[in-house]
Order: sequence, then C-alpha cells, then structure tokens
Amino acid sequence: SQVFNFEDHSHRRYNPFLGSYVQVSPHRSKRPWQGQQESIIAQEQISYDPECFLCAGNRRVGGELNPDYQDTFVFTNDFGALTADIPIGSFDEGEFFKAKSERGVCKVICFSPDHSRTIPNLSLEQVTAVVKTWKKEYEILGSIDYINYVQIFENKGEVMGCSNPHPHGQIWAQESIPDEPFKKQLNFKKYHEIHQTSMVVDYVHAEIIKQKRIIDENDTFVILVPFWAVWPFEAMIAPKVHLPNLSAMSDNQLKDLADAYSKLTKRYDRLFDVSFPYSAGLHQAPTDGLEHTEWDIHMVFYPPLLRSATVKKFMVGYEMLANPQRDLTAEKAAAVLRDCV
Amino acid sequence: SQVFNFEDHSHRRYNPFLGSYVQVSPHRSKRPWQGQQESIIAQEQISYDPECFLCAGNRRVGGELNPDYQDTFVFTNDFGALTADIPIGSFDEGEFFKAKSERGVCKVICFSPDHSRTIPNLSLEQVTAVVKTWKKEYEILGSIDYINYVQIFENKGEVMGCSNPHPHGQIWAQESIPDEPFKKQLNFKKYHEIHQTSMVVDYVHAEIIKQKRIIDENDTFVILVPFWAVWPFEAMIAPKVHLPNLSAMSDNQLKDLADAYSKLTKRYDRLFDVSFPYSAGLHQAPTDGLEHTEWDIHMVFYPPLLRSATVKKFMVGYEMLANPQRDLTAEKAAAVLRDCV
Ligand SMILES: O=P(O)(O)O[C@H]1O[C@H](CO)[C@@H](O)[C@H](O)[C@H]1O
Ligand SMILES: O=P(O)(O)O[C@H]1O[C@H](CO)[C@@H](O)[C@H](O)[C@H]1O
Repeated sequence: SQVFNFEDHSHRRYNPFLGSYVQVSPHRSKRPWQGQQESIIAQEQISYDPECFLCAGNRRVGGELNPDYQDTFVFTNDFGALTADIPIGSFDEGEFFKAKSERGVCKVICFSPDHSRTIPNLSLEQVTAVVKTWKKEYEILGSIDYINYVQIFENKGEVMGCSNPHPHGQIWAQESIPDEPFKKQLNFKKYHEIHQTSMVVDYVHAEIIKQKRIIDENDTFVILVPFWAVWPFEAMIAPKVHLPNLSAMSDNQLKDLADAYSKLTKRYDRLFDVSFPYSAGLHQAPTDGLEHTEWDIHMVFYPPLLRSATVKKFMVGYEMLANPQRDLTAEKAAAVLRDCV
Repeated sequence: SQVFNFEDHSHRRYNPFLGSYVQVSPHRSKRPWQGQQESIIAQEQISYDPECFLCAGNRRVGGELNPDYQDTFVFTNDFGALTADIPIGSFDEGEFFKAKSERGVCKVICFSPDHSRTIPNLSLEQVTAVVKTWKKEYEILGSIDYINYVQIFENKGEVMGCSNPHPHGQIWAQESIPDEPFKKQLNFKKYHEIHQTSMVVDYVHAEIIKQKRIIDENDTFVILVPFWAVWPFEAMIAPKVHLPNLSAMSDNQLKDLADAYSKLTKRYDRLFDVSFPYSAGLHQAPTDGLEHTEWDIHMVFYPPLLRSATVKKFMVGYEMLANPQRDLTAEKAAAVLRDCV
C-alpha cells in the first residue's frame, strides 16, 4: 500500500506566519480549462505617453502637474482611500456594530519616468533607487505621530486591477495595523518568546538546508516559494539576517533587496514569456514606536497566472467561503522558477 | 467642527463573525476608473447545448453519460480537488513544515436541465428542489465517517472562474473544518458561552430593529448587507430562528431559503441589468458528530461587480497584503438593492 507524501497526495499545509491553512491538490493540475481567458499583456512600447497621468511633465487627474523627474517621483494619491483630514471618533453599539475612524496617507511612487519600463527591465541602479525611496517614505510616514503601519506595495498588470501601465507602486500608511501584518505579528511574537530568535530568519535557514523551495539568493536575501504558498507562483524575498524594517538596512542590503526584486521579476517574465502580473509588497515592523525584535522585513509576491499567459487561478467559491486551495505544489513551482534563467 | 459618522468618513468596522476588520473609504466612490473592463455576460439563449458537459444526455469530460434528468442532478466531480482514495498520513518537521493528508469528496449539482436558466429565472418550485437536494447531500456526505465539514457553494459567471454557464453548484466535503467556518465557529462558541443564545440569530434581530441594512425578508429569513461587508454588494441570508444546519429545517423553511435565494438573485440581476456574477454558499454546523448549538446556517454572497456590468472591484495589493477595503458603505449598498424591485 502507498505511503502519504505531500508532493502527490491531497493535503493541508500549515502557515505558521499567518496561523492558517492551505489545501493542496497536486493531482488536480490535469483538469481541463474551458473558462475565462485573460488577454495577453503586451509590453508598452512608448517611453512617453502624452495621455498618461504618471509621465513626467503631464497633468494628473487632480489637476496638478508632474515635475520633470529623473528616477523616482512620489506624490499623494489624488483619490486615496485614507486621508488625514477626517473627524476622529468611534461608534460602538453592542456586540455587532463597532466602527472607528481611520486616518492615513496614500501615496503613489513612480518607479521611472520611462512609461515603457517595468521592474524587471530597469537597471539594478534604477531598482535600487526605488528601494531607497521606499526607505525614505517609510521613515517620513512612520514618523507621523498617528501613523502606526506603512504598507508599501505594487499592483502590476490589468488583471491585478492596475489601471495604468506606467511603472509605479503605492504606499498606504495608517493608524491601525492592518489584519495580515497584525496576524503575522502575533505569530512572530509567540515564536520570539519561545525561541528568542526571529521566525522569518529561522525559516529562511530551515529552507536553505532543505534547498527544495529556494529559487535564488544573494548575500542578504533568499528568494523562495514558501512551503504554505497559496498562489500558483507565489514567492517571498526574505533576509538571512535579522532586519526588522527598511530603516535597519545598510546601503548594501538595500541594493541586495533591489537585486532580489529584479531577479525574481525577471524569472517571472520568462515563465510564460509575458510581462508577468502580480501584487507584491513589504511586510515589516509597525511604526508604533515600540521595539519589534520579533519582526523581519520580507517581501511577498502574489501572482495570479496558473498555466499560461492567459489562464489564471480563480480564488473564488471554495477559496472565498472555506479555504485557500492550490493545484501545483510549492516544490514544483519553485523548480520551474529555478529553471527560468 | 465635524463629528465622525461612518457613512461619510474613512473608518474600520469590526466583523464579529470572523474576528477581522474591513477598511471603509466612503469618499472613494468618486475615483475615475481607467482599468480593466469585464465583458458583459449575456444570458445563454439555448436550452440545450450539445457541447455542454452538464446538459442531460450528454457525455462528460470523464467519459460518463449524464442521465435524462428532470430537476436536479448530482454527480462526483471528474476532477475533484478532494478525493477519498489517498494514503493517510502526516508530515511534521519542526515549526515550519507541517502537512496532513486530507480526504474528501467533490460533487457537482446541476440546478436544472435547461442550459439557459440561472437561479433568478427558475421558478420557486425549481429553486426549492435545489435546496432540498442540498439537504439530502449534506446528510449523505455528513454521515460518511471521516467527513467533518460539507461546503455547498455556487460560482456564477466567467468573472468568478465558472467555466460552464449551465446552472450548477458544487459541494466540497472533507475531513477538516476549513479556515473560514472554523473562525466563525470559534466566535459563535465564545458568544454562545457568554449569552446562551446564538450569534447569527441575535445579529439578525439587531438588524431588524435598525432596518438600515435589510434588503428583504420572509417568514424564516432576512436578506441583509452585513455591517462589515467587504464586497461592494455582498449580502447574507440569515435565519430569524435558531437553525444550525439544513437537517434542522422543515419543508417550509427550506422553501423560505429558496425564496430568499431567488429574491436576492433577482435583485442582483436588476442592479446593472446583467446576469449578475457571484460566489455564494452556505455556512452551517460541521458534521463532526458534536452538538453545535452555537451555529446557525446562513448563506453568503460575494459578488465582484462595483459600479456597472463591466467594472468590478479588484481585491488586490492593499487588500491581499494588508486588509480588505471597500468604497461604498454597506448602508448605501443595502439601499440600492432594496430599490431594485
Ligand atoms: O471547479 P471549477 O468550477 O472547475 O473551478 C472553479 O471553482 C473552484 C472552487 O471554487 C476553484 O478552486 C477554481 O479556481 C475555479 O476556477
Ligand atoms: O489604487 P488603484 O490602483 O486605483 O486601485 C487598485 O489598487 C487598490 C489598492 O490595492 C485597490 O483597492 C483597488 O481595488 C485596485 O483597483
């Protein structure tokens, strides 16, 4: 009789960062697909688009003029979900009706004045300029008294709700620690209390020993597919040494983060020979003024494509109502991305 | 100076069922949209499609022949994510590598032999037949020794990853209680211990008093937009009396569930004058043999459309990495759906 192994048989894996599970169904990759197909995202051809709100010198939706910027350019989102100028207050009625005002700042970061570029086709120097801008913004926003968490992220591709191909990312900084980093913080704290070491770095070293899910690395970071990945080609850039946030990082370490960001997205573009869509972003220590030895900065990538440039994974039905579910294993995804050179 | 109110100012609301938060940004509805547009889902015109895997008398992907069914028809999914015939076992190595085999059964339920129908254009008798089939399957699957949870759901529309327009739903039944119902169960239990009543029914009565988020009702159920809704037109069908699962429901109560399902989906179709896509499904007591007085059955609807038949809400970036976020308030969504008669 057969023996259970997690590369062939249906199983659940535990995510110790979030305290949740993923359902893995390796045999399901054989399923035929007759559903919706995405359109191929062509690489933009023109370096300057007179209609683009983000190109240098152009006018934005809000009416303001962009400067003639050379590397990165940051501005406050003209339609931010979070704003600073709201009355503070809360509503608390019984067990069911609890609401609290939430102040914040939403910013947009243009990665390059060149409309036709994306992270994987910028130079290492240019990507390093992006990472240094993140650090600066993390510090500026984090020093605002009421800002306790700074979420830096990038939505790439129309399929990820990105409405402008001009290379850019966003920062939403706010009063509360949002749900995902909050859950991670709880688990990082518990782990730190028990082991006196940080969970992310210990996990990275456990994966380095195994070598099964590592895609690439440099001096400071590894690029890996987490054991508990949910999205088909989900990946994480995580540090080999304790680094709670961008502020703790030296210039060399910032360059290594840029290098990993560049290397991973280059592999992604080669995977299906298309400008690869994803949502990606940093999880790092809150800016609430407390010491956060339990935290290590790490960058997560959630790309939707599953089988080809046009067939994505739908996180619907069972996944929305019950539990995240994936078909190909984390080990297979890592092997494929490792070969994308 | 202004006073905080949750219909105009950016805030977070607490979801006591899941123990999570939603970020609400009412002012953001004014944002212009230049991103991806969905194609309009045309209502199917033909009652029988010779190429359809689900039409009566046709051959399925797996090679089997569908019977000449008259109302509902249930079969085991030819490419189920969960199967019964796997070796049982687990993998447990340190803090980071934990996996456990997961047995289960995946079934498909055809709602009608008529290829051109959807729930809102079936008769009440036909929708009642669907609900009665759910009850039967909940009992058949729930009585299998190793099955502890039965997830019944429907994905409707290509945008929700539904690969076949033939009216159908799915059932995934399995060993473990999946994450979402598991979290609800924890909160329902805590509430029940404190109040000796069930959380869902108490919530329903609190909303009946307020009347601000109720869309419709019948003798057994209310249809409402939960205070903590995440999706733009998210809704819930929840009971006025304690009903832990389908088995506890009388024929009249089953008919009332069908009536609410029909009424809500009719409103949805009228909202943007389109066959309205959604993922929907039942949350109810596990089939683990324990008593579950803390549970009440309720049906949740997660529809993606935001502003029109072609503009959906993207749950990406900030939402994936940090926290669910919505623009229009639950109160506005309820008012709009209440007017869709
Ligand atoms: O089972 P189907 O309809 O082929 O597939 C659809 O529903 C499943 C359950 O919600 C999801 O896991 C799939 O991603 C989705 O495409
Ligand atoms: O801010 P954008 O690019 O207009 O909008 C996009 O990203 C936001 C943050 O991830 C999401 O809330 C929106 O649903 C998405 O369309």
